[in-house]
Formats: sequence, structure tokens, C-alpha cells
Amino acid sequence: MKLNCDLGESYGNWKMGLDEEVMPHIHQANIACGFHAGDPDVMHRTLQLAAEYQVEVGAHPAYPDLIGFGRRTLHCTSQELINLLHYQIGALDAMAKVQGIAITYVKPHGAMYHDMMNNLETRRTIYEAIRSYPRSLKLMLQADSQAQQYRREAGPFGIELLFEAFADRRYQADGRLLPRNQADAVLDTEQTLAQVTSLVKEGKVITLSGKALKLEADSLCVHGDNPQAVAMVKHIRDLLDA
Amino acid sequence: MKLNCDLGESYGNWKMGLDEEVMPHIHQANIACGFHAGDPDVMHRTLQLAAEYQVEVGAHPAYPDLIGFGRRTLHCTSQELINLLHYQIGALDAMAKVQGIAITYVKPHGAMYHDMMNNLETRRTIYEAIRSYPRSLKLMLQADSQAQQYRREAGPFGIELLFEAFADRRYQADGRLLPRNQADAVLDTEQTLAQVTSLVKEGKVITLSGKALKLEADSLCVHGDNPQAVAMVKHIRDLLDA
Amino acid sequence: MKLNCDLGESYGNWKMGLDEEVMPHIHQANIACGFHAGDPDVMHRTLQLAAEYQVEVGAHPAYPDLIGFGRRTLHCTSQELINLLHYQIGALDAMAKVQGIAITYVKPHGAMYHDMMNNLETRRTIYEAIRSYPRSLKLMLQADSQAQQYRREAGPFGIELLFEAFADRRYQADGRLLPRNQADAVLDTEQTLAQVTSLVKEGKVITLSGKALKLEADSLCVHGDNPQAVAMVKHIRDLLDA
Amino acid sequence: MKLNCDLGESYGNWKMGLDEEVMPHIHQANIACGFHAGDPDVMHRTLQLAAEYQVEVGAHPAYPDLIGFGRRTLHCTSQELINLLHYQIGALDAMAKVQGIAITYVKPHGAMYHDMMNNLETRRTIYEAIRSYPRSLKLMLQADSQAQQYRREAGPFGIELLFEAFADRRYQADGRLLPRNQADAVLDTEQTLAQVTSLVKEGKVITLSGKALKLEADSLCVHGDNPQAVAMVKHIRDLLDA
Repeated sequence: MKLNCDLGESYGNWKMGLDEEVMPHIHQANIACGFHAGDPDVMHRTLQLAAEYQVEVGAHPAYPDLIGFGRRTLHCTSQELINLLHYQIGALDAMAKVQGIAITYVKPHGAMYHDMMNNLETRRTIYEAIRSYPRSLKLMLQADSQAQQYRREAGPFGIELLFEAFADRRYQADGRLLPRNQADAVLDTEQTLAQVTSLVKEGKVITLSGKALKLEADSLCVHGDNPQAVAMVKHIRDLLDA
Repeated sequence: MKLNCDLGESYGNWKMGLDEEVMPHIHQANIACGFHAGDPDVMHRTLQLAAEYQVEVGAHPAYPDLIGFGRRTLHCTSQELINLLHYQIGALDAMAKVQGIAITYVKPHGAMYHDMMNNLETRRTIYEAIRSYPRSLKLMLQADSQAQQYRREAGPFGIELLFEAFADRRYQADGRLLPRNQADAVLDTEQTLAQVTSLVKEGKVITLSGKALKLEADSLCVHGDNPQAVAMVKHIRDLLDA
Repeated sequence: MKLNCDLGESYGNWKMGLDEEVMPHIHQANIACGFHAGDPDVMHRTLQLAAEYQVEVGAHPAYPDLIGFGRRTLHCTSQELINLLHYQIGALDAMAKVQGIAITYVKPHGAMYHDMMNNLETRRTIYEAIRSYPRSLKLMLQADSQAQQYRREAGPFGIELLFEAFADRRYQADGRLLPRNQADAVLDTEQTLAQVTSLVKEGKVITLSGKALKLEADSLCVHGDNPQAVAMVKHIRDLLDA
Repeated sequence: MKLNCDLGESYGNWKMGLDEEVMPHIHQANIACGFHAGDPDVMHRTLQLAAEYQVEVGAHPAYPDLIGFGRRTLHCTSQELINLLHYQIGALDAMAKVQGIAITYVKPHGAMYHDMMNNLETRRTIYEAIRSYPRSLKLMLQADSQAQQYRREAGPFGIELLFEAFADRRYQADGRLLPRNQADAVLDTEQTLAQVTSLVKEGKVITLSGKALKLEADSLCVHGDNPQAVAMVKHIRDLLDA
């Protein structure tokens, strides 16, 4: 089980995230590519940091919406979405190679991630974008109860899927997260560590209703926004290493 | 002697340039990379067109200034300029590979081009950006009387230079162009064809003062902004092919 | 019956629309405010042109989506939409006053216009934005069969509505336009002039099914994108003046 | 003697500055207008805060350079600079009126501020922009030894100047600040409070060479970037109130 974190979300003079503090404790860095966050200088520094700590790097592309931080759906045709992905992945891919590292996967950001999880057509367009990209890359999706279905869909495109689970969020029966605006949506430290243990040892989470749900996850999404979040990442990492 | 043209300068709903009309007549397309012009969809269509006509493709990166069309200098540190270049070249490079073609050179746009020609430090930074790019690319500069000097500078970086001359612009004694705001700066059709002939057959232009100046040029920069410009490109291409 | 046209849609080096050719023939110019088109220089020149021809000016604000030309919905809270409107209207309002003219109305652009016509909540938010704007402005909506309903809604906000009809588009039974992708959606010259005559003399259009539909319109939306469009505007203006 | 502070410099999801903490202690808020920082939502919240604490508001316009935070000169013609100013001031002006307050002055930001202080032509263009703005506004410049000269220049434009001094920066003999990259450029708390006292009581600062320099200042520029800066603002405010 790996730990992944969205990084490189600063922009120009605006700093976001404790990238330097969290990078030593994660396995995979999802790096913003300039359309919702992350200008070329931020990308450069984040890639240097990933190289320093030998952290695997994935592209974290988004809809072009800087003011909205990529959190709003922007209607795109399939070809437009493919172009958005190739442009952003290509930019990060080249900058990573300059640092002597190679990106290995793609994890769409924000609204593009949600659209991917909610729409077969968006998902198929993203499979096609990755299939047609000049290098082989994996795609990271959210681990839910439909993992086998996603694998069947992706099969004809010849791409490998990675699944991420959320360490600190309450799951619903269908493997989706309980929305943040609902009570108990975010787990406390003890609950989080219990959920991590359950995922790692048994490949399960206990959902809102108290039932166990099988979730196959390759990676856990963690956060580096503030010192408490970084402390939690260290806890989880220690648990995984133990 | 090749013909190169700045293409892919549309943006979103705004169309600029007769790319489809001029592409069949040129050898090299300098394609905008999104920072002064050219969004991912425009880049995609322009690359498809270049692939269709088997036109060589170069990256045409710029300072991030959409309103100013990349024509204003933006102060950057060396590292910032390198990052701007790697990002833009990387995005186009990947999108070109998707179309089965590979970009072969870089020609900076607008103010970045002028800064390159006027500042040794900018030039050295651009050499370094191309040296450190993960694939081997050439750099296109303006042919002036300092070509040997530029070659000496670029030598330690291990990069190959291309020089472009201007078919329809009057030259000054130092090989720089007479500024557009001066009388006789732009040649008429007959003068243009004479200058092309002189460049191709004798490697010379006749400067403002009437003297011949040796100019070694690999390519001629032509324009596709309007039907007259495209007609001129056809004339020049016929002359070259004859 | 007045003629209104979307103008000032150039941006930086990109020119769109024959503003100079169409301005002499219209009564109302809907001027872009920088978020989907129209930078401060374009706004300045368009306002000068409106002042020269004594054309009434309205603000034509949009979602912040330059690449998408404001044609894609961007989810906003009510307060965010109000802020987008106040910012854009305020910028144009001040620049108009510099030219000695005062904007008199607001017509949302593209996706914001469609969202206004399709959602009561969006409409109410726009009413509130205009109510709270520091000067009294009218709101232009599309004339359809619900005009009385819109007036009732707007009443408590104390704002006056203007309705625009489309000279060259086929209407459906509910007063909405037949989508462009359907056959016969766009009228030819003869049909257009007949529809204008019917609207002016009888306050009606003949819908797709052949029935007459009452439409109260204060203004006709015309286009200035190309020479044919401008010629049509002249035809319509001559008809109105006759 | 008033205290002014640059505020509203957040953007979208990026937070910058402790606006809520510093607003209660200042007299004048220079609010970013969207071109280097400050989207419409940030402007709205900052204006609400200024209204709550009855702080005077000035427009803080900049060159359009979000990545560079307005800190890089962008060459503009006079008309372009005027348009940039009218657009940004107009947007903030309208949004302020919505909150029941009226902006009273303009303080250019970053590179535009430096260009104003260093170039007579830029200064004259800014005078003209304020003269032609539809409401009467003051212009805030840096207090240096040329204040009388600036007043003579501004006279024909009929605009009133405000001068700001810097509480925590070392002055040179000509009234300009010692650049930040030089030793002793930034004063410690004791020195800062001594400089404030000297400015308020005697209208003087002690320059780098130890000589007293007369500086007429209407306002002191203070900062709200971090808790230490806010604590310093409180110290200075207490000193002024005492």
C-alpha cells in the first residue's frame, strides 16, 4: 500500500501546501500541471523535491479554471478533453525527464476526477487519452465497488489502472465517500488509523452502516495542507512501515 | 533553403492566420505553445495539418502574455526562462508525438526572440534550456552578421543552430532588419523575389546602403496572415523549387 | 423596435467582428467586459465607436472562460455570480463614462444568458445583482412566451426588463429558438425580413409548426461577424426605418 | 499620519495576507483589482471588511501579470496604461459602492508603482488616467525628496497627491529606500518605532548616512503578511494614537 498526495499546488506568489514537509513521507506525488494550479516554476521545484526523495510522480491535470481551482466542471468534447490531457501531461513529463525522473501515472484533478468517476463517457475519453499518449502511463481512479467494471472498460485500451482509497474519509455502501458536508464524513486520528489497518490487512473498510466493504486499493490519498495533516501522514506511514 | 512560418496562432474562438492555405507551401511550421497564442485544441489541429503535409515542426514558445501576444519582454531569471521553455516545448512535443511526428527545433517567439538576439545572457539561458531538454533539438536564430559568434557560444552546449532570413524585409549593414516603422522596411514582390534569389544563389542580401552582406540562412521566414501573404509564399516556393 | 449586436469581442491581437462596419446601423451595443472577450483596449475602442455613432451601450458580462468564449456553464454560488457581474459591469461603466456615455442595460453573454433563461434561481440572482448595482440598469432577456412571468419575478427587485427577439432564427411553439443544429433553424434573407415585419407590425412570429406566436420584443439581436451579416443588418435597419 | 496596507491579495483558492487581523488597525486599505491578485470574490470580501472597520479604500491596480504578481514591467502605450487603470479602478469602484463605501484614491502596485516613481512619462500618464476618471480620486506616491516636483507636475491635471513613507525601511539620501538586498535595509522594531516618531513629530527620517531628511508623508505603508507584521502594525498604531 502506497501513500499519494496532491502537490505542487502553489501558483506564482501564492503558496499552498507543505510540499517540503510531506514529500519525505509519501510514495507518490500527484503534481499539478498549470491549469488549476502549478506554474512552470512550481512544477520545477516540486519535481526536484520528488527526485530528492525518490517519490514516484504522476500528472495531476485539470480543467482550465485557475479561479475555481479546477473544481468546476467545464463541458468539453472528447477531443478537447484529450487535448487538455496531452498538453498538461506532456508539459510535466518533459520537466520530469529534465530532473532525471519519469512520470508513471495520471490522476485527474477535482471536477475532472469526479466527472471521470461519474461518467462512463468521460472515463472512456480519459482511457483513450492515456492510450494515445506516446508513453505508457497508468491511470489512478477512486477505489469503489466498481473496480472490476473499470478494469473491463479499460482492457481494450490496454492501460493499467491504479486505485486509491481515502484514509480519513467515511465510506458509503457503494464505496463512494460520504460527502464532506455530512456529519462524521471525516474520520478522527484513531478512526483513520483503524481504517488504514483494515484496508492494508483485510482489503476492507467499515462503511457508514457498519458493514464491511471490500475495497482493493493500491494507494491511500493523504493531504499536506497543514501541520496536522502532515503529522497524520507520518502516523500513517509509520503504521504502513510497521 | 527552407521556408518557415509561424502557425497555430489562433486561440479559443479567435482565428488568426490562414494555416490551412499556407501549410502546403512551407517546409517548417513554428507552432505556438499556449502562452502567447495556441490553446491545446489549436495545437492539435495545427499538428494534424503539419502531419498531413509532412511539414517539419518546431516549438514556438513565448513569455506568458496572452493580451500582449508575447510581444513584450517579461523579466525572468534564467531558471524561470528555462522552466517556461521546458513546459511549452514539452507540451507541444507530446502532442506532436500523438500525431506521429517529432518536433525538431525551437524558435522563440516575439519579445523572447528579440531578447535572445539582443542579449548574450538570454541566449546562453536558451542554449542551456535546449541542452537540458530530454531530446535533442535545434535552435533557430535570426541570420545576421554574428552567426559565427553564435556558433561559438552554442558549441559548449552541444546544440545545433539554424538561421532564418527574412524574404520581404530590408536589411541593415549589421544584418539586422530595418525596423518596420521606417520607409522601405518591407519589400515589394519584385524586391522580395530578388532578395530570395540573392540569398539562395549567392548567400547574400543587398542592405539599405546598397552593399552586399553575406548571410548564411537555412530557412526563410514567411507569413500566412492574409491571402496576399499566402500568394507571396507560393511565389517564393515556386522560385525555390525552380 | 431597436437593433442590438454583441460587439467588442476582439482580444489582444485577435480581431473578431466587423464592429466599425456594423456600429452605424444598430441602436444598442452589447459590449464584452474582459471575461470571455474584450480586453481594456478593445473596450475603450468599442466605447469610442459607440459614442461616435450615439449607440446605446449595455454591459455583456460572462463567466470567466476565455478559451471557451463564455459558452460553457461554470458553477457559481449566487454571491459569486453577483460579484462577477458587479466587477464586469463596473469596469465597463467607468470606461463608458470616460467617453461621456452611460451604460443603460445588462445582457449576460453565452452560457450565463442560457442559464438565466433556463433557471429561475440564476435569474433571481441576476435580478439581485442589478438591483444592488449602484446605478439603475435594465436587464435584457430573450423574448419568449414567459415574458409576463419574468416581469412578475423582477417586480420586487424594482428593475426594468428589455426583451430581445432574433431576426434570423426559427422559433418553436414555446418561444424558444430552434437549435442551430436542426434543419431550417436559420432563416434566409427573405424569411428574416418577413419575420422582422411580422414582429414589428403584429408583435408575432410564425413558429416551426406554422402557428403565430405573440412575442413582445423591444429589440432585435443582429450579428456583425462577416460582410453578409452586416449587409443583413443594413437591410433590417432600412426596413425598420421605412 | 495614517496607516495604509496592501490587502485583498488572495486569489481563488490561494490565501495571502492576514486581512482580517490587520484591517482593524489601519486607516487605508489598498485593494488589489484582479490583474495581479484579487478576484471578484476576494475584492467583495475585502471591501466588506473595510466597510466593517470604516477603513478608507484605495484602488491598487497593476499590470496584467498574475504569475508575476504584477512585479514585472510590461511595456504599455499611454493609452493602454490609461485603459488598464480605468478598467481596474472602475471594477473596484462599483463593488465598493455596492458596500456603501466610495474609494478615494489610487495607489499603483508593484512594477507599475516603481515605473511611476522612476519615469516622468509614466507619472504623467497616470495623472491623466486619474484626471479623466469620472470621479475625483487622489493618487498615492512614495514620499521622497521630489514631492514638490510631483505636485508641480500634477497641478495642471487638477489632482491631489498623497505621499506614503515606509515605517520599517532604511532611507537613502535622495529619499528612496535602500534596496532590500542590502544590509540594514529593513529596520528592527525599535528602529521602526523611532522612525515613525521622527516622521510624525518632525517630518524627518534619518538616512543611511546618518543625516536627517525632510519627508512629508500623509500615510505610512505597513504590512499584514504574517503575525509578526500584524503585531508591528498594532505597535505603530498605538504609537500614533498616543
